[in-house]
Amino acid sequence: MSQLKNDLLLRTLRKEKVERPPVWMMRQAGRYLPDYLKLKAKYDFFTRVQTPELATAITLQPVDQVGVDAAIIFSDILVIPQAMGLEVLMEEGKGPSLPGTIKTQKDIDALITTGVEESLHYVTDALSLTKKELNGRVPLIGFAGAPWTILCYMVEGKGSKTWDKAKRFAYTETNMAHQLLQKITDITINYLKAQAKAGADVLQVFDSWAGCLSPGDFKTFAQPYLIQIADALQKEVPVILFPKGSWYALKDLSESSAAGLGIDWCVTPQYARELTGNKITLQGNFDPSRLLAPIPEIKKWVKEMIDGFGTQNYIANLGHGITPDVPVDHAKAFVEAVKEYGC
Amino acid sequence: MSQLKNDLLLRTLRKEKVERPPVWMMRQAGRYLPDYLKLKAKYDFFTRVQTPELATAITLQPVDQVGVDAAIIFSDILVIPQAMGLEVLMEEGKGPSLPGTIKTQKDIDALITTGVEESLHYVTDALSLTKKELNGRVPLIGFAGAPWTILCYMVEGKGSKTWDKAKRFAYTETNMAHQLLQKITDITINYLKAQAKAGADVLQVFDSWAGCLSPGDFKTFAQPYLIQIADALQKEVPVILFPKGSWYALKDLSESSAAGLGIDWCVTPQYARELTGNKITLQGNFDPSRLLAPIPEIKKWVKEMIDGFGTQNYIANLGHGITPDVPVDHAKAFVEAVKEYGC
Repeated sequence: MSQLKNDLLLRTLRKEKVERPPVWMMRQAGRYLPDYLKLKAKYDFFTRVQTPELATAITLQPVDQVGVDAAIIFSDILVIPQAMGLEVLMEEGKGPSLPGTIKTQKDIDALITTGVEESLHYVTDALSLTKKELNGRVPLIGFAGAPWTILCYMVEGKGSKTWDKAKRFAYTETNMAHQLLQKITDITINYLKAQAKAGADVLQVFDSWAGCLSPGDFKTFAQPYLIQIADALQKEVPVILFPKGSWYALKDLSESSAAGLGIDWCVTPQYARELTGNKITLQGNFDPSRLLAPIPEIKKWVKEMIDGFGTQNYIANLGHGITPDVPVDHAKAFVEAVKEYGC
Repeated sequence: MSQLKNDLLLRTLRKEKVERPPVWMMRQAGRYLPDYLKLKAKYDFFTRVQTPELATAITLQPVDQVGVDAAIIFSDILVIPQAMGLEVLMEEGKGPSLPGTIKTQKDIDALITTGVEESLHYVTDALSLTKKELNGRVPLIGFAGAPWTILCYMVEGKGSKTWDKAKRFAYTETNMAHQLLQKITDITINYLKAQAKAGADVLQVFDSWAGCLSPGDFKTFAQPYLIQIADALQKEVPVILFPKGSWYALKDLSESSAAGLGIDWCVTPQYARELTGNKITLQGNFDPSRLLAPIPEIKKWVKEMIDGFGTQNYIANLGHGITPDVPVDHAKAFVEAVKEYGC
């Protein structure tokens, strides 16, 4: 394995001094890129995810075309429920759906819990291939969904504004909810270890629906499982936790074994630093909608964002995934603005 | 007009000492109540909203059946864009849609801005009739959507997870966005004044989509208009501002002329008090999903919530609207738990 030519991300996660903050974008490999859309027109979602050559090609596009400082493997958080035996449908324009929702103890007992990481070999194969193709240009990020977020989909069966079915399950079948969360956690740990072994330099855990939980419920149903994952992986590679919406948990999580914390745009950089006391590297938090603004505005706002976080122990990123309607030039302007900071 | 027999809500908003916190629930008149569903089966949405006898009957149901300490008029925040000349469709199970979205200066110029409160006479008629029917049992709350939230619907044309079209409009057509926000604000002030004149004892302004904005964007596109409304109404009746999701604005808004601030469940009661320094009455913040839990849990959590906020300068409520799947007994248990607090 060749040594990394650009190791800004890794040094930042080790809290070493860097020349400038590294920059990448959540969902950077995806629907705003014309070359991605060409592959999307030819191959359905799971073909793209399950064919290492396609996943690798898609993963490399933003590295080549937008100039980000890290690649993130093209995959999906729902490969875990799928590998645990639940059917996952991806219908264009409708979001994911899982017809066989979890309701009873029998449903939980029926979930596949052994050999899951082996059945996800297409992800580790894609990581190995991408690692080879990157040839040390930039680090490679692997990822998984957080247990709470995966439970949300498994119980609700589709996206939701309120996730009230998932929460009802947590409140009324609390014992089952914890059993399910623990099963997902154990599998996710093995899956992420396999990703590290296959070449992932960094691992990110997406708790996309953490923000639907009150601070108390987050501490019960989300935080312990995030911490288990960070603890189990810390000796392998640096872990970034991204509990979207859960600003109230930043202090607690800054004291965990994670190397980085993702922040959305509803917290100011200054307040995020105040909450976390510079104990941990922070990542974020540009509102993806702001990429729809004129380029000079984007550049001004990026500067303000970096002024707020500071250039050290900081990874420039969005506060959530890039949206399909962002012009490629605007995404490039975001990345350039980070690279030009202080020049 | 007979004097109020139960004026807990009004005394609390004046920061006077009360025997116990008043309690009501956002969307308390609605789809979880069987008697509402009977009317819903017979009359379409706008017939229910525009027929004072129906709106009054619906408004009274939770007062009679659930025992809340306030009535809130049955209406909708989208009556404002409708009265400004935009078509608003309410399709069952699909949420609202506005086919004629605002895109250009011409679209803004074409909006109706005079006589809007007169054209909304069905709301003021419903308030007068409800006031009469209540006969002083509990106070009556009127309401409107906040300018940012109304702009979201006018520009986006339907509900959205990200509101990125609305935000793009704000970022790229900033001057137009402020023109539109000011027009909505002026009309909303007149509309709320007419509601107060018709008998509303309290007015609530719902900024349901404030939480999609970063702290900086909230200060630009939401806060100034909320403050204009609070300032214009403060001499009429107490105003409650509810900027859902915008916990970062609580401190600033606690220093406004509003009498109360609504809080969602993503802030602990303790932290909400810390941010607002007991300068303002707080309202909230039970997670509506928690009403799906077993009744003993609901009662325990209500007690914890009141312990957190304290019994004074506090209105017990949910952190957002009650959902259709809540059993009536659970809603009653919530209200009872507040009334039983400390007994």
